[in-house]
Amino acid sequence: MTYCVGLFLQEGLVLLSDTRTNAGVDNISCFSKQHLFHREGERAIVAMTAGNLAVSQAVINLIQDGLKHPETGKEETIFTVPSMFAAASLVGEAVRQAYRVHGRAMKEQGINFDVSILLGGQLADRTMRLFEVYAAGNFIAATEDTPYLQIGEHKYGKPILDRAVSVDTSLSEGVTLALLSMDSTLRSNLSVGMPLDLTVYRRDSLHLNDHWRFEEGNGYFQTIRERWSEALRGALREMPAPPFFS
Amino acid sequence: MTYCVGLFLQEGLVLLSDTRTNAGVDNISCFSKQHLFHREGERAIVAMTAGNLAVSQAVINLIQDGLKHPETGKEETIFTVPSMFAAASLVGEAVRQAYRVHGRAMKEQGINFDVSILLGGQLADRTMRLFEVYAAGNFIAATEDTPYLQIGEHKYGKPILDRAVSVDTSLSEGVTLALLSMDSTLRSNLSVGMPLDLTVYRRDSLHLNDHWRFEEGNGYFQTIRERWSEALRGALREMPAPPFFS
Repeated sequence: MTYCVGLFLQEGLVLLSDTRTNAGVDNISCFSKQHLFHREGERAIVAMTAGNLAVSQAVINLIQDGLKHPETGKEETIFTVPSMFAAASLVGEAVRQAYRVHGRAMKEQGINFDVSILLGGQLADRTMRLFEVYAAGNFIAATEDTPYLQIGEHKYGKPILDRAVSVDTSLSEGVTLALLSMDSTLRSNLSVGMPLDLTVYRRDSLHLNDHWRFEEGNGYFQTIRERWSEALRGALREMPAPPFFS
Repeated sequence: MTYCVGLFLQEGLVLLSDTRTNAGVDNISCFSKQHLFHREGERAIVAMTAGNLAVSQAVINLIQDGLKHPETGKEETIFTVPSMFAAASLVGEAVRQAYRVHGRAMKEQGINFDVSILLGGQLADRTMRLFEVYAAGNFIAATEDTPYLQIGEHKYGKPILDRAVSVDTSLSEGVTLALLSMDSTLRSNLSVGMPLDLTVYRRDSLHLNDHWRFEEGNGYFQTIRERWSEALRGALREMPAPPFFS
């Protein structure tokens, strides 16, 4: 399993992913699920993947190697597409190409063709976007009304986002929130695991230099995990007792 | 969908369920999922059900009408079983009986035989127990290490329980916690809905009189929903900012 979350904020993007992959609980590995495509000042694109690892890797390879545009016939890569919308279309086309090559054989082995991708970033003189691409290659964009997208094991980490994330949330608060959402997921689902990859993109910067890896025991992550648990317990003590029960 | 949660505490049991059933989003109804089997001073048993409504209702009927014990051949009902363990066995047998009658025909219509039951309570001079019965009729019991069980849409409401419930939690705190866990679920999954049914059982009391229904707009539930959201937002403001990001 996997948990990836992307926040689409006024100030920019917060993109956080775990690194655990597993083929059963007895076969656990560490793979980064975050892929950066960066040309300083020209394009800053991040893809995060969930689902079958072979499919995810095929898609990431295909968008770098290049695919023919289904209408123009022109070969395009993640480094040549002219907009984030075109980048999402390219990723969708790569997903369909992977399905054409591997889909039937996977089905014959009883394996689901299961993949989803969060794709966030910006190109020079274009709008910053955050997309979620599905296994059918179609996609949706985050908007101001729902300024976050999640893929993989999304349920445990959703309540805190539903309550606290708005498009006005600062990048700094967004980082803390994304980490707390990840913490809830890590606590409840063993198949999501450390280390974590975090990228913060500042709107209109076209830089992708704010990138960190959080290893087990990371000081800041440890601090906010503990303080959040304490704060929740404290808040609980402050709740009024049920007046109907004594 | 459904959400039911049972807390197994030193002081007793807290049992909370929603009432929404749905056959698609265009066919939503209200059914209580909480069933009380009570003989004052002799037995106090509560069953909460999730899954296919026809199967759940069949099981609840069967345990009241009576089933032959598979080994002794003796007819037993939820009012004659001698212990909570025997009650869980009876519910399991009822699930298997429902499967024998309806399982194949349901499968032919493409419908899963999907049911799970939380069964809590106590009989005179016996131990208080809380069980979860699965669709195969087998079951597990809550213990001091994991003093709660959930059925139905359990993921959204789990993080708060994982962080805050222990066997020493008081019944009054348990009520608040169960309602907050339900709140997280209601916010994120439309197929879980008000009103709510709550039963609190005090260990060794053999009474089942602490039973409430929470309608939409209930004052206490409204208050703790709002105060919990405020407390979370407040706690978030108090979190230290990520020192690596400025």
